[in-house]
Amino acid sequence: MKHISSPHNAIVRHVEQLQRKSKSRKKEGLFIIEGQREVFLATRGNFIIEQLLICGSILLAKDLFTEDDVYKKLEIDTRPKIISVTEEVYEKMAYRSGTEGCLAFAKTKSQQLSDLRLTKNPLILVAESTEKPGNLGALLRTADAAKVDAVIIANPTADLYNPNVIRSSVGCVFTVPNAVASTAEVLAFLKQKNIPLYAATLQSSERYDKIDYTTSSAIAVGTEATGLSEEMRAAAKANIIIPMSGEIDSMNVSVSAAVLIFEAKRQRNFN
Amino acid sequence: MKHISSPHNAIVRHVEQLQRKSKSRKKEGLFIIEGQREVFLATRGNFIIEQLLICGSILLAKDLFTEDDVYKKLEIDTRPKIISVTEEVYEKMAYRSGTEGCLAFAKTKSQQLSDLRLTKNPLILVAESTEKPGNLGALLRTADAAKVDAVIIANPTADLYNPNVIRSSVGCVFTVPNAVASTAEVLAFLKQKNIPLYAATLQSSERYDKIDYTTSSAIAVGTEATGLSEEMRAAAKANIIIPMSGEIDSMNVSVSAAVLIFEAKRQRNFN
Repeated sequence: MKHISSPHNAIVRHVEQLQRKSKSRKKEGLFIIEGQREVFLATRGNFIIEQLLICGSILLAKDLFTEDDVYKKLEIDTRPKIISVTEEVYEKMAYRSGTEGCLAFAKTKSQQLSDLRLTKNPLILVAESTEKPGNLGALLRTADAAKVDAVIIANPTADLYNPNVIRSSVGCVFTVPNAVASTAEVLAFLKQKNIPLYAATLQSSERYDKIDYTTSSAIAVGTEATGLSEEMRAAAKANIIIPMSGEIDSMNVSVSAAVLIFEAKRQRNFN
Repeated sequence: MKHISSPHNAIVRHVEQLQRKSKSRKKEGLFIIEGQREVFLATRGNFIIEQLLICGSILLAKDLFTEDDVYKKLEIDTRPKIISVTEEVYEKMAYRSGTEGCLAFAKTKSQQLSDLRLTKNPLILVAESTEKPGNLGALLRTADAAKVDAVIIANPTADLYNPNVIRSSVGCVFTVPNAVASTAEVLAFLKQKNIPLYAATLQSSERYDKIDYTTSSAIAVGTEATGLSEEMRAAAKANIIIPMSGEIDSMNVSVSAAVLIFEAKRQRNFN
């Protein structure tokens, strides 16, 4: 097993570059996964792990270990190559503190709309221009819990392999079917598939719970600052609103999305 | 108007201490509010602002200003004492970056259960031992939007005047009626008021949407790690569950709370 003890090793720099730069991730088709649960969920989502960087003293509480120790601990069936690293090297590469001594190089996946496999009456969450990686991650976590058919990201401001998206999704970015496209492409896709769009807005709209979501439905949420684009609202079958009656007139976008998605799930009797 | 240009001024140290130390806030009955909207919402919530610390160049885009300039800009009716500070001093005191040149010393309020004024059929959110100030703030933001009668914090791990609670609540900590008490006190209060408790759990429970929330209801959420205490679950009229069917089996506590509270609001026809 290869071992890295120098923080100046080229692999360490490679990890840092992939964590920091969206452009590098895109160009190389590679990204970094950090944490035990995240690596496990990535394999559940059929992501290909190219290489594991393991700090034995953190992950396994021992410095000497075999490859099988690691595969067993991570509960993964594939057998990616393993490099062992010292604690110093691990801490240098780790994006967040308190993680479990486990980093992975993984291959990005195609995120084409045409890759999505939808059920007969799909429930889709559309997130347009979501501002913060943390919000995008939170949306994906909720979407996993609700088991929507897909999350479609329209005009993204961050790529889904951003370390903050992965972290705040607690790994659900790997398990929820998703696609990324421009707003125009998303609208064309929904039209072609005959899936009506319901656009969450803060103005002059129908109450969200008055809509029938038991047949094909796409629910779209926009940014906290400016909401959905005019293009999206104009294409919607209905603009919908969550009535709010407090001092402030908006909720966190992942909270709004959860209220809408779980109303649809309730109507579908959670099937 | 008094002016501070030295970052070593005693008032600067006082601000920093109140931001950092829960014990100081409790002992002095004072806390710090940061940001224009937050100060505005605090006055809406009848908090007493003792003193404003204003950086004119940031808040008003001018170094010379009158007290009336500030009251008008902040849209507040009370006329607290104003101290002007330089940008250097402001940046030293500000807890978060990019705020609007406005800090306030404010008096903490009593948070007794007996202070709560409830309507005839109240809807109450109970948050037990919520782990992170950010989650507590997010809960309060949702509770404001839904206009629940009260948020009751049982066995809190952070006080509500913690800067991270204020920030993540976007000031709703000031507008939502709230109280803080031990779990035993909360249960005694609900019993005395004849308000049934519905405890959100992850096991062997009734589906949350099968409960009738149109009469008095308290909905309790626990921590993401361990859920609600045995004490809370045992005292509940029903243990309720949000069915989840994804790879992971939990949502962010503020997201779960939103799904439950808005189901109650839906049943109440948003009245």
